[in-house]
Amino acid sequence: MRIVIVGGVAAGMSAAARARRHDESAEIVVLERGEEVSFANCGLPYHVSGEIEKASSLLLHTPASLRAALNLDVRTRHEVLSLDVDARTVTAQSPRGLVTLSYDALVLAPGAAAVRPPIPGIDSPRVHTLRTVSDAVALRERVTGGDRRAVVLGAGFIGLEAAEALRAAGLEVDLIERADHVLPPLEQELATLVRGELAGLGIRVHDAVAAARIEASADADTVHLDDGTVIDADLVVLSVGVAPDTGFARDAGLETARGAILVDERGRTSAPGVWAAGDATASPRAVTGAVAPAALAGPANRAGRLVADDIFGIADARRIPASFGTAIVRVGGLTAGLTGANRASLDAAGIAYRTLHLHPNQHAGYFPGATALHLVVHIGAEDGRLLGAQAVGAEGVDKRIDVIATAMRAGFAASDLIDLDLSYAPPYGQAKDAVNLVGMVAENVLAGRLRLWHAAELDDVRTESLVLDVRSAVEFATGHIPDSLNIPHTQLRERLDEVRDAADGRPVRVLCAAGVRSNIAHRVLANSGFDSASLSGGIQTLEHWYGARIDRILTREGAPA
Amino acid sequence: MRIVIVGGVAAGMSAAARARRHDESAEIVVLERGEEVSFANCGLPYHVSGEIEKASSLLLHTPASLRAALNLDVRTRHEVLSLDVDARTVTAQSPRGLVTLSYDALVLAPGAAAVRPPIPGIDSPRVHTLRTVSDAVALRERVTGGDRRAVVLGAGFIGLEAAEALRAAGLEVDLIERADHVLPPLEQELATLVRGELAGLGIRVHDAVAAARIEASADADTVHLDDGTVIDADLVVLSVGVAPDTGFARDAGLETARGAILVDERGRTSAPGVWAAGDATASPRAVTGAVAPAALAGPANRAGRLVADDIFGIADARRIPASFGTAIVRVGGLTAGLTGANRASLDAAGIAYRTLHLHPNQHAGYFPGATALHLVVHIGAEDGRLLGAQAVGAEGVDKRIDVIATAMRAGFAASDLIDLDLSYAPPYGQAKDAVNLVGMVAENVLAGRLRLWHAAELDDVRTESLVLDVRSAVEFATGHIPDSLNIPHTQLRERLDEVRDAADGRPVRVLCAAGVRSNIAHRVLANSGFDSASLSGGIQTLEHWYGARIDRILTREGAPA
Repeated sequence: MRIVIVGGVAAGMSAAARARRHDESAEIVVLERGEEVSFANCGLPYHVSGEIEKASSLLLHTPASLRAALNLDVRTRHEVLSLDVDARTVTAQSPRGLVTLSYDALVLAPGAAAVRPPIPGIDSPRVHTLRTVSDAVALRERVTGGDRRAVVLGAGFIGLEAAEALRAAGLEVDLIERADHVLPPLEQELATLVRGELAGLGIRVHDAVAAARIEASADADTVHLDDGTVIDADLVVLSVGVAPDTGFARDAGLETARGAILVDERGRTSAPGVWAAGDATASPRAVTGAVAPAALAGPANRAGRLVADDIFGIADARRIPASFGTAIVRVGGLTAGLTGANRASLDAAGIAYRTLHLHPNQHAGYFPGATALHLVVHIGAEDGRLLGAQAVGAEGVDKRIDVIATAMRAGFAASDLIDLDLSYAPPYGQAKDAVNLVGMVAENVLAGRLRLWHAAELDDVRTESLVLDVRSAVEFATGHIPDSLNIPHTQLRERLDEVRDAADGRPVRVLCAAGVRSNIAHRVLANSGFDSASLSGGIQTLEHWYGARIDRILTREGAPA
Repeated sequence: MRIVIVGGVAAGMSAAARARRHDESAEIVVLERGEEVSFANCGLPYHVSGEIEKASSLLLHTPASLRAALNLDVRTRHEVLSLDVDARTVTAQSPRGLVTLSYDALVLAPGAAAVRPPIPGIDSPRVHTLRTVSDAVALRERVTGGDRRAVVLGAGFIGLEAAEALRAAGLEVDLIERADHVLPPLEQELATLVRGELAGLGIRVHDAVAAARIEASADADTVHLDDGTVIDADLVVLSVGVAPDTGFARDAGLETARGAILVDERGRTSAPGVWAAGDATASPRAVTGAVAPAALAGPANRAGRLVADDIFGIADARRIPASFGTAIVRVGGLTAGLTGANRASLDAAGIAYRTLHLHPNQHAGYFPGATALHLVVHIGAEDGRLLGAQAVGAEGVDKRIDVIATAMRAGFAASDLIDLDLSYAPPYGQAKDAVNLVGMVAENVLAGRLRLWHAAELDDVRTESLVLDVRSAVEFATGHIPDSLNIPHTQLRERLDEVRDAADGRPVRVLCAAGVRSNIAHRVLANSGFDSASLSGGIQTLEHWYGARIDRILTREGAPA
């Protein structure tokens, strides 16, 4: 039996290793277009900065080590050009000419390549991508070789890591993002935190603007943005996204979606005997069902393994699960993580949802080093199902995202998070962990005990309601919404008449710093017959949403008079 | 309506706060025996060390602040003496004499007190417990007041924290544990790591030995152990466990189990109108069904909240979930965490299980700071259900324990861990996260693809089998099992004849450093017709199990000749 695997990194190499464990005698051939196999894709930016000192650390295996350990026939510099699914052959360009191989089973794991947008000047030699070890080595050589000014096009995960790496290496860095905010999958009210952290690192962020053209000269290129800004650059990193490498598969008649090879739950393509896995494939997303590629290392590795199980007809073989797209990135001292759907994907799928905002500490507040986790959680509007969660904070983000991703895999409703028995000691969490608190808030919202209003509604709320600020007088004095009434929550029971007079029949919309005291106040008001609601996430979320201090929100650019 | 709550810390205060949110008009009275309410139980050891500088940080609320925020009537120094469940009254000793209160609903959350074993001399004034803020303040005063030598009796969670705190404050510390090893709920092969860390902190550990008596003198006490050891102590901390404070409840005829008040899934006791929650209650454990008290802050807080829901007949009130007993402790630079059942509780419950050992890195191996997580996971022998997990490591323990605890709450089989979509970037995890790897190993074991042998079987294995060490020759030379055959896994396919000759019809038992290469070798052997098995957790687990370097295991005290 001969298994041919196209692509020797995450998905392809996982399939190859697993296949060998099933069968000592199978011939397993891996064709890799590049010079390296089994390299640490996700580690590349950290070599650019020097945090990972040696490029060799990024090479997890070589063809020789894979031959020795797993008896794999790994051939680098073999680029597959065509595929004949009837004849069951695959043809590759090798350093020594064309090679045609027959196969019993074919696994396509060619990955994705950096998108090169049609910008004039994009082919300047100063423009780099960051997808291979060679790319990382080239960039490292430039930053240690005297380059001083870098422009990073695209502020997605890799763009952020590249920008930080270049800045850490001492370069001036301008980071350009066409979308409204950096890290576009992240919600607006968390992205402002990432933007602030980038600014703190000394990275100049340009969002909602695109590169129009790049002009090359001997000394430096100039990057021209479509708002007229011109930036000198010794070096440009292109990180506007990746696209599947699937030309040969489409030519062979394989079904594709959004440029990626369509696969079923077993990794099977539309052609018999042909499987696919990894960045080049598309399959339905877990929450929305939208068919899309997900260029993520974890799902790629696991899918490659399951493809091998299916090739060998393993009786207990699992289906490849739909992905939640869990992802994480370190930005300076912050971590930003997300899992499941965000507003844009929920809106596109027509799923009704409610959004919760919390700012709990990552560990006991009385223990040194306590710092806030900023959480945004989307839940089904009626059933309370967990649809997506995002978090930004200095510590503990990865843990909460992983716990919620696990709960989502279990199909939990948000209120089921109450019952999670999470580890607690003061250095690690709280007796009511951040994740438990999400469940408690969700349960209260779904039962109607907690009614929320949201930062986006601020202007309407100011027009139609009494804004009641239940912080202390000292906090109120540091900045507040104009025309809001201040009654600390501890005095509210005795001062309900003042609320009634000021409201004068209007609804009461309560706020505090983070949404905890305003929830207490809301219960007092609701139990006393008021039309009341509490600001989700409090003033912290309000400020993050508008990217401005509370006393400047109403005078910000574009705000209503 | 009057709700009386006995106990003003975790469970009691959660019940009180939740009750107020349901009803503005209810009279809510909290009777607390001690001087403080709502204090941070779990933070006490960190004040002894000075890591939490001010004792006031441990006081989360006062009667006055609870009156203001939640209109609670909190009465400290009120010790409940008796309860009349027919008359619905409770009688307490207060500073101003006896007080009898009638109630519509009664919540018993009296907590647990430190066990005082009947050791002669235990009432010496140098013997302290660590359950209240006053206890912590008294200990802090002693360590800053010149005490130099401390003995800690009991190396459970609080004992470890106390020992480390005293050591951090500069004292000489002897830590005494009657069980076979420190942190008795932890499995032996992980406890050796904790013991090593304690030794590294300069704490002298005495395990499998008990205190026989304490002799007081003016200068110092002496603690006499039952192996004849005598230790001078300026200070003794008693941390041999806690027992529920339930005398008055038993006197009133409430059903109890193991000294704790028996409650159902709503927190109801055997008496109408009487609920109970927290450390003083017993309920079935999640995995084994064993009815036992669980003195843990998280479950106590959540149960208190749900009791309030039941009192008010909230329509969507959740049941109080069975506890997995998730717990965690920081010891020096290590973290030890556990969830679910351990060997002892599984054996006691008659549940058949298999045990997996893994030592994956907490984040990408090529990223700076990679360090091993030592994992022990028990799974159902046939169904592969997750029964319990424990981990020790320098980083990332809490995350993996929490993810597995969440998976256990979902009723997942261990192999379901493969599918978890966990956050991955090099600083946070691996593309195949430690938890995914647990799933992969479990799946292989359950399907019979991976057959394990265990450290405890070493002597039998040496007698009956060929021990095949598949590490490199260099590793082998640093220490190995006598009479084992060394063939690196990369040479195994070419040298199978040597294995056949050496085995001479006996089974082959493979080992490597951590169990990864021996799994590869096992597949080669099994696919080639050998009776083969791979050492669970490899030499690392072997060394942790025996608490000795590999070349000294066979000459250790008590080892067979």
